[in-house]
Amino acid sequence: MRSNGQWRLAAHPEGLVKPSDYRWVEEPVRDPAQGEVLVRVEYLSLDPTHRIWASGRESYVPPVAIGEVMRGGALGVVEASRHAGFPVGSRVRGLLGWQQYALSDGRGLSVLPDDPALPPTAHLGLFGHIGLTAYFGLLDIGKPQPGETLVVSAAAGAVGSLVGQIGKLRGCRVVGIAGSDDKCRWIVDELGFDAAINYRSQDVGPALDRLCPQGIDIDFENVGGAILDAILARINLRARIVICGLISQYNAIGAVPGPSNFAQILMKRARVEGFIVSDFLSRAAEANAALSSWFAQGKLKYRVDVVEGLRNAPAALNRLFDGSNAGKLIVKV
Amino acid sequence: MRSNGQWRLAAHPEGLVKPSDYRWVEEPVRDPAQGEVLVRVEYLSLDPTHRIWASGRESYVPPVAIGEVMRGGALGVVEASRHAGFPVGSRVRGLLGWQQYALSDGRGLSVLPDDPALPPTAHLGLFGHIGLTAYFGLLDIGKPQPGETLVVSAAAGAVGSLVGQIGKLRGCRVVGIAGSDDKCRWIVDELGFDAAINYRSQDVGPALDRLCPQGIDIDFENVGGAILDAILARINLRARIVICGLISQYNAIGAVPGPSNFAQILMKRARVEGFIVSDFLSRAAEANAALSSWFAQGKLKYRVDVVEGLRNAPAALNRLFDGSNAGKLIVKV
Repeated sequence: MRSNGQWRLAAHPEGLVKPSDYRWVEEPVRDPAQGEVLVRVEYLSLDPTHRIWASGRESYVPPVAIGEVMRGGALGVVEASRHAGFPVGSRVRGLLGWQQYALSDGRGLSVLPDDPALPPTAHLGLFGHIGLTAYFGLLDIGKPQPGETLVVSAAAGAVGSLVGQIGKLRGCRVVGIAGSDDKCRWIVDELGFDAAINYRSQDVGPALDRLCPQGIDIDFENVGGAILDAILARINLRARIVICGLISQYNAIGAVPGPSNFAQILMKRARVEGFIVSDFLSRAAEANAALSSWFAQGKLKYRVDVVEGLRNAPAALNRLFDGSNAGKLIVKV
Repeated sequence: MRSNGQWRLAAHPEGLVKPSDYRWVEEPVRDPAQGEVLVRVEYLSLDPTHRIWASGRESYVPPVAIGEVMRGGALGVVEASRHAGFPVGSRVRGLLGWQQYALSDGRGLSVLPDDPALPPTAHLGLFGHIGLTAYFGLLDIGKPQPGETLVVSAAAGAVGSLVGQIGKLRGCRVVGIAGSDDKCRWIVDELGFDAAINYRSQDVGPALDRLCPQGIDIDFENVGGAILDAILARINLRARIVICGLISQYNAIGAVPGPSNFAQILMKRARVEGFIVSDFLSRAAEANAALSSWFAQGKLKYRVDVVEGLRNAPAALNRLFDGSNAGKLIVKV
């Protein structure tokens, strides 16, 4: 009988994830019941929001409970099926969790197109929730106009790197904020951002003054905290602040101070709006058509950072917060 | 020769306005030049935003410079005119300033309809910038739907008291937050709010829990600070936070902490939007038609708090911040 290795939540983390927050469990793989499908998980997406899900706090979805298999988006291959929608051998994507095998009743599970030109991991990035997040967040919430200035925080991250490129395709001046000179070089030299700021070695405010001489029209915000404050101080009339993530806060213990430049929202008649990609899934085809076309024309680039072995997932999650990942972080299960 | 008494800005206030921040000046009234009009100012509107204008800081309009006549909306009667658009004897409204006489080239000045049924002060309240602020802020930015819960801070203030009544007309459950039991009684018993919270004697968070059992869909925010934080903690999915004012911050010295529940904007996919009534002036007729109709039907009530004498304007301004005004604060010049 095959064994299913799993990471179950052992404690709601305080601050960065500790090894003791997750417990490795092995249990036998059971055959699918009528209407179920058994998936062998191949790749697990690691996302900043996993830290929110583990926290035990109310958010936009229920928190993962102690003892549950850790929630996570993943893709895998159907090994056994008693569900007509998912034939054996098909590749599927869904919230399969941090485990080697997943049983599913098909809800939230989708069969992926069999495109030999695409590596499977693309379905956890550009052609998955990452691409949709960048596309709808920037275009629907940010509403960029040609000639506007777009600032992207966590600009070398999975979402941010796409947002900047889509901003360029829409005719914006794009300035990215990232955490290393290597990342800054990558987003400017390879992805075509107009400029980049290394927030670890530069003072973000003066750098924004220099690189956004016309002020900031759109902020695609992945970080929050001091970076958001520096951006708010420099927004233009009717700026849009797209709140995609606030990664600087996810490991915070206790209350987090809000942006002290909050009054800029009033002074500049700005709009600050949070969003989540799941609200846009009904329009995924629209986004995927655009993303595919741009990708085929070489106008969208992405990179993945693959960690080998599900055993390494908890430790790897912290890399999203210390900034040591280089591209979309994925675990090869 | 007549004398024009004026309040000129002597210092940018720190904290509450002090007598030494304004200087009383008398200068001769000069005759209007060609294209100018001389207005005898009758009533001066005192608004929280005057504190912003006096601060010397960048905001949505240039700050009032030291030595300038203090800016302020007012109405008066044309005493002499060399401008065809403003006949002698007509009543006009505009940014006439904190003074007894104003010379104007007509820009930003409008002739008021001669309606004997309305007291002149109504043109600085319900049928002035106050009514337009409440109307467009709630309806255009807040977009209330029947059955939604609307919370209004500074609910007994000039704008807030109208917002709550318009919210009721739109079918919302309306909960007001105000600073005294008298004010709370007034907005519930006279204006028809569903409930009120005295933030000086009650713990706002638990009171909101009790009075907004379905959560909060719209916050019409005039205050900011701890009240905004308590509201943010209780917003529903896709809540709208209309930032009309942040009066709790205008007298602050130094940086002000932002709302520590800022992440709720992300978790609830909320929209926070600042606005200013001047962006809506082209649609004033639409608002005034609706406001007039509601007023004529007895569905909109307001009250004014008239201070006698321009000399008392600087001291009276502080009453907006200690909450001792009862209705739209106006100086009878």
